[in-house]
Amino acid sequence: MNKLHVSIVGGSGYTGSELLRLLVNHPHIEIDQITSRQDDGKNVTEIFPFLPKKITNKFIHPDNATFDQSELIFFATPNGIAMNFAEKLISKGKKIIDLAADFRIKNIQLWEQWYGMKHACPKLVEMAVYGLSELNKNEIKNAKIIANPGCYPTAIQLALYPLINKKIINEQTIIIDAKSGISGAGKKIDDNLLMAEAYDNFNAYSVQGHRHEPEIEENLKEITKRKNIKALFIPHLLPMVRGIYATIYVDLIEDLGETELDLIFSTTYDQSIFVDYMGINKIPKTKMVRGSNQCKISIFKRDKKLIVLSTIDNLVKGAAGQAIQNMNIMFDYQEDAGLNLLPLAP
Amino acid sequence: MNKLHVSIVGGSGYTGSELLRLLVNHPHIEIDQITSRQDDGKNVTEIFPFLPKKITNKFIHPDNATFDQSELIFFATPNGIAMNFAEKLISKGKKIIDLAADFRIKNIQLWEQWYGMKHACPKLVEMAVYGLSELNKNEIKNAKIIANPGCYPTAIQLALYPLINKKIINEQTIIIDAKSGISGAGKKIDDNLLMAEAYDNFNAYSVQGHRHEPEIEENLKEITKRKNIKALFIPHLLPMVRGIYATIYVDLIEDLGETELDLIFSTTYDQSIFVDYMGINKIPKTKMVRGSNQCKISIFKRDKKLIVLSTIDNLVKGAAGQAIQNMNIMFDYQEDAGLNLLPLAP
Amino acid sequence: MNKLHVSIVGGSGYTGSELLRLLVNHPHIEIDQITSRQDDGKNVTEIFPFLPKKITNKFIHPDNATFDQSELIFFATPNGIAMNFAEKLISKGKKIIDLAADFRIKNIQLWEQWYGMKHACPKLVEMAVYGLSELNKNEIKNAKIIANPGCYPTAIQLALYPLINKKIINEQTIIIDAKSGISGAGKKIDDNLLMAEAYDNFNAYSVQGHRHEPEIEENLKEITKRKNIKALFIPHLLPMVRGIYATIYVDLIEDLGETELDLIFSTTYDQSIFVDYMGINKIPKTKMVRGSNQCKISIFKRDKKLIVLSTIDNLVKGAAGQAIQNMNIMFDYQEDAGLNLLPLAP
Amino acid sequence: MNKLHVSIVGGSGYTGSELLRLLVNHPHIEIDQITSRQDDGKNVTEIFPFLPKKITNKFIHPDNATFDQSELIFFATPNGIAMNFAEKLISKGKKIIDLAADFRIKNIQLWEQWYGMKHACPKLVEMAVYGLSELNKNEIKNAKIIANPGCYPTAIQLALYPLINKKIINEQTIIIDAKSGISGAGKKIDDNLLMAEAYDNFNAYSVQGHRHEPEIEENLKEITKRKNIKALFIPHLLPMVRGIYATIYVDLIEDLGETELDLIFSTTYDQSIFVDYMGINKIPKTKMVRGSNQCKISIFKRDKKLIVLSTIDNLVKGAAGQAIQNMNIMFDYQEDAGLNLLPLAP
Repeated sequence: MNKLHVSIVGGSGYTGSELLRLLVNHPHIEIDQITSRQDDGKNVTEIFPFLPKKITNKFIHPDNATFDQSELIFFATPNGIAMNFAEKLISKGKKIIDLAADFRIKNIQLWEQWYGMKHACPKLVEMAVYGLSELNKNEIKNAKIIANPGCYPTAIQLALYPLINKKIINEQTIIIDAKSGISGAGKKIDDNLLMAEAYDNFNAYSVQGHRHEPEIEENLKEITKRKNIKALFIPHLLPMVRGIYATIYVDLIEDLGETELDLIFSTTYDQSIFVDYMGINKIPKTKMVRGSNQCKISIFKRDKKLIVLSTIDNLVKGAAGQAIQNMNIMFDYQEDAGLNLLPLAP
Repeated sequence: MNKLHVSIVGGSGYTGSELLRLLVNHPHIEIDQITSRQDDGKNVTEIFPFLPKKITNKFIHPDNATFDQSELIFFATPNGIAMNFAEKLISKGKKIIDLAADFRIKNIQLWEQWYGMKHACPKLVEMAVYGLSELNKNEIKNAKIIANPGCYPTAIQLALYPLINKKIINEQTIIIDAKSGISGAGKKIDDNLLMAEAYDNFNAYSVQGHRHEPEIEENLKEITKRKNIKALFIPHLLPMVRGIYATIYVDLIEDLGETELDLIFSTTYDQSIFVDYMGINKIPKTKMVRGSNQCKISIFKRDKKLIVLSTIDNLVKGAAGQAIQNMNIMFDYQEDAGLNLLPLAP
Repeated sequence: MNKLHVSIVGGSGYTGSELLRLLVNHPHIEIDQITSRQDDGKNVTEIFPFLPKKITNKFIHPDNATFDQSELIFFATPNGIAMNFAEKLISKGKKIIDLAADFRIKNIQLWEQWYGMKHACPKLVEMAVYGLSELNKNEIKNAKIIANPGCYPTAIQLALYPLINKKIINEQTIIIDAKSGISGAGKKIDDNLLMAEAYDNFNAYSVQGHRHEPEIEENLKEITKRKNIKALFIPHLLPMVRGIYATIYVDLIEDLGETELDLIFSTTYDQSIFVDYMGINKIPKTKMVRGSNQCKISIFKRDKKLIVLSTIDNLVKGAAGQAIQNMNIMFDYQEDAGLNLLPLAP
Repeated sequence: MNKLHVSIVGGSGYTGSELLRLLVNHPHIEIDQITSRQDDGKNVTEIFPFLPKKITNKFIHPDNATFDQSELIFFATPNGIAMNFAEKLISKGKKIIDLAADFRIKNIQLWEQWYGMKHACPKLVEMAVYGLSELNKNEIKNAKIIANPGCYPTAIQLALYPLINKKIINEQTIIIDAKSGISGAGKKIDDNLLMAEAYDNFNAYSVQGHRHEPEIEENLKEITKRKNIKALFIPHLLPMVRGIYATIYVDLIEDLGETELDLIFSTTYDQSIFVDYMGINKIPKTKMVRGSNQCKISIFKRDKKLIVLSTIDNLVKGAAGQAIQNMNIMFDYQEDAGLNLLPLAP
């Protein structure tokens, strides 16, 4: 089989490095160009010494990247970059997977308000497909632009979907207490990301509102065709590197039994390779998914409250892994090609 | 001023060692006896090399401890120990501060159900005072037995009290998403407490129910004279050693403004040395209180939801520090005698 | 190609779980029996929830394990177990890879002194091959019993071998300052391995002598045919889970230039898939090898001192990974079959 | 007693914040001015929320700082700042304690070579006193300028001094394998200091040479009046925040017994409040000194090698704590005034 040629824009951050870690062993992929402003001209293995020596790619400056050979371009860039390149690339017949937020919210006004900039290509947002692989598979197959979901929204929507889809919870009183490892914040220069600050510390942040809240609400509405979903989302920063953990509190409309609830989740994810519904009263741990594309979900019933626990590795299922899963779906490879890595435990 | 003679039962766990760390520099205290089964006969400084060499106490076996010189006995023992010693010590005119759970719940049946054993002295439970220093000061002054609160309940009740006391929230829909450093679990032999398991990991636990839930509900009812408080309490284990962080979600009954809410908290803790209400939209962090007796609280309003953040060091304000604060109140010392340690940051 | 049937004795510790993590995706392997006293009868995926659901093995009690189907048995047991089973298994034509220390030291007296027990089968020690894959490949090919090297000795011998082999250092003045993540100590019940103790802490241990010192000296002598190797080895405990880092100080006999030294290392490991000699003045980091079977080595010259830095993941190249590498060599598979995992970074 | 008025230049880094943590509870000190370019005008408690609310100081811009009221100025600035202010301040009769490196090396040429800049006041270097409190007490008493030692040099010189002073080791073959928590690198913007990079990682750095090597050699020569001390010093970065750990390898000239060696150390530090010589074959741990001004030292004899272990908290005894200890000596306070904090363990 001919290899699929792909390129990566913005290869020197954490999602870029994670794409490389996963693509390097992918059986059907050849990496063409990897762009980086700051590391232009350097060997990729010099910047990422964990990569195997056989990788001979050099970073090139984005201005010099033509992507001529590539059928698919990954954007592992900050928000607001992909939207400036998309039109031209699409017009050349290339496909795009954006790991940032440029195409995640259809409501342009809402997007511009949360992201504090003018959107460069509202029309393309229209045609973009939200790449939550398990819940949008048919649309992904034919997509030209994939809006790869945020890390929190991935863990949270996979947890909430079965309940909203079955219309068994109050969609207005959802509370999401979420926690993330520090790599979710990217490779940024920020005092709060320094080891001396973040180690042996825990705190909430963005309590007044976080961009992933509208992303969660809008896409859940879209996927479930429900109109009035409202979720209060409070993120926290964990003193560790990888891992999202969402503790979700919902109100059951009627008092369903554990068996029925269990069945709703198990049937939803029966055929999913990467979503492991563990069952009732099971405890997922971030370390059970670290380094893998798995999402682990469990539920607990407390009177008429249901508590859903959901965990993923933010850099894999929450970013690069899901991007590759989407690529596999788009190009008709096995869904887990290049993604059958087991979690690193202990 | 004559020194107060005190003894410690169960000195070799984490609350015992923390009591020592704090009492050693207390201006009014002389430590008489420190018991330990496993370290009987050993120098306290051998087991706790962080203590200063001037400490010459040796551990003695509890069977050999007479406490003759002591006016006050701290129990830093597992649950179910203090209740067997209390009657005799009280009859000799000694006072007791139990850092375990034996005297925390007045409803004996409820206690026996959660703690899985028969209570040895229900009558003494009746006379015991719940040692939440800020909220029970008058009772503590004259107490013979102090039930020192659990670590979670301390952080949580200090956060909820102003709201329940002012009757401005729905007391039935309280959700508490709490996180704790691993020292909260004690110095136990348990696979989950091993570094190889707990490092770089995060998970919920006791989701089906945790003993601190009835403690919180019962004591908040007692303190606020409200009858129907119901709190859903879900604890999580943080990959760090010290620190409790509670994210509390409540529903406001009427839509109070931020200024009014702010005022309710600031006036409640105006005179409190150890509760720092930070204000509206401020972020407390566990590292801001690590090693100190401080509790830091802040609030955020999101529509008709109020989010209260509260953090303490579980071994200090959540255990040994509050025990000493209670001792200071009982024996009419300055409330912060021996407790003016600043947090260790970074 | 027919699958090779293997079994694992002692599957519930960290080396056992790591063997499973690696073997599960090995293209040529079928796992027959996995023994565990404590988890007898339980599903392997219940104890190790990070394993994929397709694994249907159950733990069996070692007394019930027959290993009838297996050509190769891994012992992931504590020291002193494999030696009691070896004779019988060998007599049945099976091969053994012992990940513990039973066959690592030929000098039985020395072994008994360091391990504090009588050796059960000195004769088999004679025929056992020390499984340092890169340096003993020919012997490994035909071995019946492999003594899989200790974690420290693997990192250290790979670093020292080129220098001793070329006879360019004083073999009497070697100083090895080594550091290990806590998983090197196994899944043991020991206060020092508790998170509350080991987190945010660093210390030396076994400074009076560690069992890996005679292992290093004896096997380096054997491999290089040199007689008087003496190494002072001081281990330290790192506040992290995986990773060995050795900082080795040696005296050059004559003042060789950097180019010559560089060449000695690069030619030695030219053909090695798993030893990455990084070059002069490069900094290896434990995170560059975490989760992978790589060893990274670099050198620095300071006057007539040479400093060699060497790092591995103690559970992979220092245990289960090297065991599988040895298996691959013994059964004539590609050396990296099942082992081409990239390190998990960041 | 009148309070001593002091000011801090560069108050917003880690040594500045640590000075504040310690001075705030010092019985004899009043803090006048605290300078910061970046936090000019802000409340000190806003930047350091761990400080008690009673602290009402605001940061002022260094250009506006007059230090009129202050008898003593602490410089918690980067290297190369204090030397530009010193002349003027000294001429006004003020005293200086520089926590950076400007006055640590008498040999100006050597200093300029290692620090890559021209020294602004070589004459003042001449009169500066190296503030290793235990070993230079008499000079410190009368000093106008204190060069506060580096963190590594403090732990290392306290460990080596007894041996060199007694002339019992080969002074040419000293090897120092040292490890530091990340706060030693300061609050800098540097990828390597990010949590995502440094957590769960360990590596050596500056292996080709580190500025503390000449500082150690020169000052040990000065203090012991020995001429040919040579130490190979290799630092490493620990995945934690506070703590220096030095493992030092020396060759005994003659084969002294353990008792004699023990006596040399115990008599040297008999009267030292802050140096705890633990004895032969004892294991110091960084957590035994975390947050305190203690240095813990122990020794191990292996044939004719002596191994000395030494640990301090780099921000306390390795920086701010020793600065205050020096202040106490200069102004004739009790040596431990404001410094009797116990380590934070666990």
